[in-house]
Amino acid sequence: MHILITGAAGMVGRKLTERLAADRALNGKAIDAFTLVDVVAPAKPAGFKVEAYAADVSVPETAAKLIKDRPEVIFHLAAVVSGEAETDFEKGYRVNLDTMRSLLEAIRTAGGYHPKLVFTSSIAVFGAPFPDAIYDEFHHTPLTSYGAQKGICELLLADYSRKGFLDGVGIRLPTVCVRPGTPNKAASGFFSNIIREPLAGKEAVLPVEDSVIHWHASPRSAVGFLMHAASLSRETLGPRINLTMPGVACTVGEQLAALRRVAGEKVYARVKREPDPAIIKIVSGWPTRFDAKRATALGFKVEKSFDEIIRVHVDDELGGKIAA
Amino acid sequence: MHILITGAAGMVGRKLTERLAADRALNGKAIDAFTLVDVVAPAKPAGFKVEAYAADVSVPETAAKLIKDRPEVIFHLAAVVSGEAETDFEKGYRVNLDTMRSLLEAIRTAGGYHPKLVFTSSIAVFGAPFPDAIYDEFHHTPLTSYGAQKGICELLLADYSRKGFLDGVGIRLPTVCVRPGTPNKAASGFFSNIIREPLAGKEAVLPVEDSVIHWHASPRSAVGFLMHAASLSRETLGPRINLTMPGVACTVGEQLAALRRVAGEKVYARVKREPDPAIIKIVSGWPTRFDAKRATALGFKVEKSFDEIIRVHVDDELGGKIAA
Repeated sequence: MHILITGAAGMVGRKLTERLAADRALNGKAIDAFTLVDVVAPAKPAGFKVEAYAADVSVPETAAKLIKDRPEVIFHLAAVVSGEAETDFEKGYRVNLDTMRSLLEAIRTAGGYHPKLVFTSSIAVFGAPFPDAIYDEFHHTPLTSYGAQKGICELLLADYSRKGFLDGVGIRLPTVCVRPGTPNKAASGFFSNIIREPLAGKEAVLPVEDSVIHWHASPRSAVGFLMHAASLSRETLGPRINLTMPGVACTVGEQLAALRRVAGEKVYARVKREPDPAIIKIVSGWPTRFDAKRATALGFKVEKSFDEIIRVHVDDELGGKIAA
Repeated sequence: MHILITGAAGMVGRKLTERLAADRALNGKAIDAFTLVDVVAPAKPAGFKVEAYAADVSVPETAAKLIKDRPEVIFHLAAVVSGEAETDFEKGYRVNLDTMRSLLEAIRTAGGYHPKLVFTSSIAVFGAPFPDAIYDEFHHTPLTSYGAQKGICELLLADYSRKGFLDGVGIRLPTVCVRPGTPNKAASGFFSNIIREPLAGKEAVLPVEDSVIHWHASPRSAVGFLMHAASLSRETLGPRINLTMPGVACTVGEQLAALRRVAGEKVYARVKREPDPAIIKIVSGWPTRFDAKRATALGFKVEKSFDEIIRVHVDDELGGKIAA
């Protein structure tokens, strides 16, 4: 099987590539080739036929090139993040919308080609005010351009799938936590920072109240969602192909209590509370908790607690070790 | 005030133009100029500065030309209908999606120009299965390309409005009934045919069961929705600018009972029941009844009964006369 990943140099893209290369198979089918693309050239996994290069995926020429060898499964992860889509309106629409349309059109016009396309949407398609738990039938009224672009891509993907041009599935990822790497300047960065930094022996700032509720899944679960999504048939999915992924709903206070349980008092003490009114305001418009009934019924799996999310981070990123 | 109408040669566009020309004002502001565009040149109302021409509105050059004199209010009605968008996929996306994007981009990049843009969306953004009454927060899972295109336009309009590039409002029209003119080949045509033809002394075919429920508003109400939408400020609307319009929910049997009450037994007897399995299947996926709370609270008005919808047709199209 030949797999195409757009956004393969990003955090989720890298982890997905590594997992697929380690498994050498996806849902029981052996993998022999990868096409990997991003704004910078993605790393090449060893032992496969691999094309990996940097390209602007938003232009039709690139989309046609990406599918020339007719990959059976496409993971379309490429996107500019929420903050950048908000400050650079044109770039956001070009990368987050035009890329999807170019890709869908390249597939539609290729002739006799019907790949599985797994698309990473986002819970940013939802905008406040919310019910206590956001249900699968709740409407999309995004409050960011990023959310609008993701919502539009969902509609396009569903329509091209309904018309039989491809088999699409869109998955709305929770906030991926704990993000590895360096502290992120995104408004949502603190959800990861307050766990990752103390575990690495460094201080972290919590800019919001302990009562803020959010929806989390580990990077490992995000990769699992993508792989499971690729296994779902059109018949199983029906026409409603865009799904809110399960997650762990917890308050920031509960995140920190989990950190204390998993890593101890000294690690917990590295978190400093410094409320930031700007971040508090942004976060107040974000989704809190979901009732992801359909995805759960379709077999998507996530951690059962935030403790487990922390342990995944310690295992996958820290080799099992916590900085005392 | 200068008003731009796209799709001005269509049924709703013509009625809107006539009404505005008769009123000579919109929401208390005097009208002095019109720009009217469609695939065929729209008729010119007398007594105003009018530009009326045929053009392909989907291309950026046309969009720029349309707004060159900076119309304060834009009614964007141009669209290919559901059936055509389904059979001609490329044309549907070009006319129903690219036109909106060209128009929004022309406005955004014009500089210092922030018109009111009223967009006619459709209840086709909704797809079965439905709750008993479709509520304002129900999600969009269209089962036609037309519905997908309208849903995408709603998301674009809301995002461009949120960013302050214009003041948008999208109104999801019920099925406009009774449509004047000749019998329509669209699958939904019978909702109007079974009223209009008997009233004109002709036979009509009912291809579905009497129990089919649908959501109707008269052409007069549709024009009223458009004019009222143009009066709503950004503050009144808030970020959720796309609204399901109120309508009259009734079964086909109730439509015919109304016809009998309003026009008598002889007119009613002109309807022949000839079930068509193909049409029955299509109609089974359509929305039935809505709970249009927000639009009603915002002051949108519709007929109170299907009897009233028939009387509007008799008054507006038949000069008050029914063919005995």
